[in-house]
Amino acid sequence: MARVYNFSAGPAVLPESVLEEAAAEMLDYRGTGMSVMEMSHRSAAFQQIRDEAEADLRELMSIPGNYKVLFVQGGATMQFSAIPLNLKKSGVFDYVVSGSWSKKAFEEAGRFGDARCLASSKDGNFSYVPDVDALAYSSDADYLYICQNETIYGTRYPKLPECDAPLVADVSSCFLSEPIDVERYGVIYGGVQKNVGPAGMAIVVVREDLIPEDDLKDVPIMLQWRTYADNDSMYNTPPCYTIYICGKVFKWIKAQGGLEGMKKLNEEKATLLYDYLDSSTLFKPTARKEDRSLMNVPFVTESDELDAEFVKASKAAGLENLKGHRSVGGMRASIYNAMPQAGVEALVDFMRDFEASHA
Amino acid sequence: MARVYNFSAGPAVLPESVLEEAAAEMLDYRGTGMSVMEMSHRSAAFQQIRDEAEADLRELMSIPGNYKVLFVQGGATMQFSAIPLNLKKSGVFDYVVSGSWSKKAFEEAGRFGDARCLASSKDGNFSYVPDVDALAYSSDADYLYICQNETIYGTRYPKLPECDAPLVADVSSCFLSEPIDVERYGVIYGGVQKNVGPAGMAIVVVREDLIPEDDLKDVPIMLQWRTYADNDSMYNTPPCYTIYICGKVFKWIKAQGGLEGMKKLNEEKATLLYDYLDSSTLFKPTARKEDRSLMNVPFVTESDELDAEFVKASKAAGLENLKGHRSVGGMRASIYNAMPQAGVEALVDFMRDFEASHA
Repeated sequence: MARVYNFSAGPAVLPESVLEEAAAEMLDYRGTGMSVMEMSHRSAAFQQIRDEAEADLRELMSIPGNYKVLFVQGGATMQFSAIPLNLKKSGVFDYVVSGSWSKKAFEEAGRFGDARCLASSKDGNFSYVPDVDALAYSSDADYLYICQNETIYGTRYPKLPECDAPLVADVSSCFLSEPIDVERYGVIYGGVQKNVGPAGMAIVVVREDLIPEDDLKDVPIMLQWRTYADNDSMYNTPPCYTIYICGKVFKWIKAQGGLEGMKKLNEEKATLLYDYLDSSTLFKPTARKEDRSLMNVPFVTESDELDAEFVKASKAAGLENLKGHRSVGGMRASIYNAMPQAGVEALVDFMRDFEASHA
Repeated sequence: MARVYNFSAGPAVLPESVLEEAAAEMLDYRGTGMSVMEMSHRSAAFQQIRDEAEADLRELMSIPGNYKVLFVQGGATMQFSAIPLNLKKSGVFDYVVSGSWSKKAFEEAGRFGDARCLASSKDGNFSYVPDVDALAYSSDADYLYICQNETIYGTRYPKLPECDAPLVADVSSCFLSEPIDVERYGVIYGGVQKNVGPAGMAIVVVREDLIPEDDLKDVPIMLQWRTYADNDSMYNTPPCYTIYICGKVFKWIKAQGGLEGMKKLNEEKATLLYDYLDSSTLFKPTARKEDRSLMNVPFVTESDELDAEFVKASKAAGLENLKGHRSVGGMRASIYNAMPQAGVEALVDFMRDFEASHA
């Protein structure tokens, strides 16, 4: 069996040890005589899996006691609706649009109130993050929304906005990649399928006072955060196997030294790749230097033909999924937590050779 | 490794061969060098997994071309909201309440219109299905809703209602257990975690003309069926691994002779268990004979103490999850597609011995 280096933007590479454990436990989870896929979500064995996953996540992120952790289905996209629906008071929602994902979230919020785009970097093809010090907040905004790391364009916020309204951040593509100060946020959420586990779940970390106390009578029950918060995310059957794999990833991250350890490893990988890109005469990184993502690294050559040749050749060399997102073209290397240093080294070596042979 | 006989109502037993295949493919799916969990949902390998799953399901259920198959997150519970939201025209919704699940669906529909309970079997603790020939349909109903098999109370509809409005059926706990005439329905849907795969997905089979053509501007994007129908259920990242396992289960069902084969096997298992129950002086089945489920078999002894003793002793004997639902007590054996005949035989043998020793 030959494992490839998988630079997919999501679903994405998982730690090999996690997959090995999952395979070994597939038919009999620790003497229960059944797979985790077959377990009642009300069983003691699954309850322990769920509770450990939440406890490990709380420890990793240092989540204060007044924040709830919700495991929800429907991906980050379902939260694009849930956020305005749960946080609505004045009905004014402030958004910064720094890429496709924040744009989609902004458009969805418009269904439910007065969504305002305070700043956008669309003029620069989302190659940078708008200046957060220049934002003119709405005085009555229910929240300010950002996408902290834009997967497609490879940017992340170099600093967080200082706003009075609760800050809501989509962290799908930078989840658990470095330490985060939870108290700076009202809501931190993301799909798990990039840095945390298999597709099919989002995690929402939300300050308790932002969860509506009463039933929101026009809002579907599964979009109400209260439904999850009051029931340990088990109002209905949760995506049990996804929670199980995420729990294993949390333990793996703890073994890497937690989020401090992850940050160090991620910085080493990103530095290696960006340093090469900055020195290359063939490849050019596309995101503004000060806003570069640690996780998603888009780059181009001088032509679409050469881009296509590179993607094809890299695939043949066991470097998978380097093609850029269909909306932007070029290349993109997603170097999430589970991408080993050796994978980035192999990529840089391959790029050097490609560059030399195309000089 | 000792596998138990798992009578859980869901998540529930899966075919052992499916789990074995999944374990073997965990680190390298057929030479791709990665797990299905790690694959981009836009990759050719995953697209094939998705397309085959849909094609196999269509073949198994003989789904006509004018029905769409949607893979959605949020469980059946999210569809409790999606059904009235997508089907709303007059805003009058007819429901038959034959158990906890149809009751929940009925209550949820009340958020979005005039939900009417045409009949309920609550007076009999949901031990029977209301007479569908006696239903007084609303003349302007957008649909008639039933839960075709009630997991908790172990009933199923012995015949379908003959209504003018589209029939909507929750088939979560009888999915793919026997042939079904899709054209009798407007919408057939269910969570997959009982008879089809791991928790984290529902499948909706819906007649094309019932899917709203235009955006429903007040409805969250992930609750609009159109979002799924227009995008092969990949508007956002789908629960890829769940689709993959479901696809394997579809192939397994095909190998059992399709739904005709499944029905035969399921009837043999159910007959074995019901025949014993009908002859027992200790155990009593609780559902009305003519409405008995093929899948979920609730029963009781004469006392709560004896029930508890039975559950404990059966667990010790490798017969797991026989405790009844917390809302009704007693026992329940869920004997889904993947429960082997040998499991039901072991259960009946154990019950006979228990009865003999408690005579």
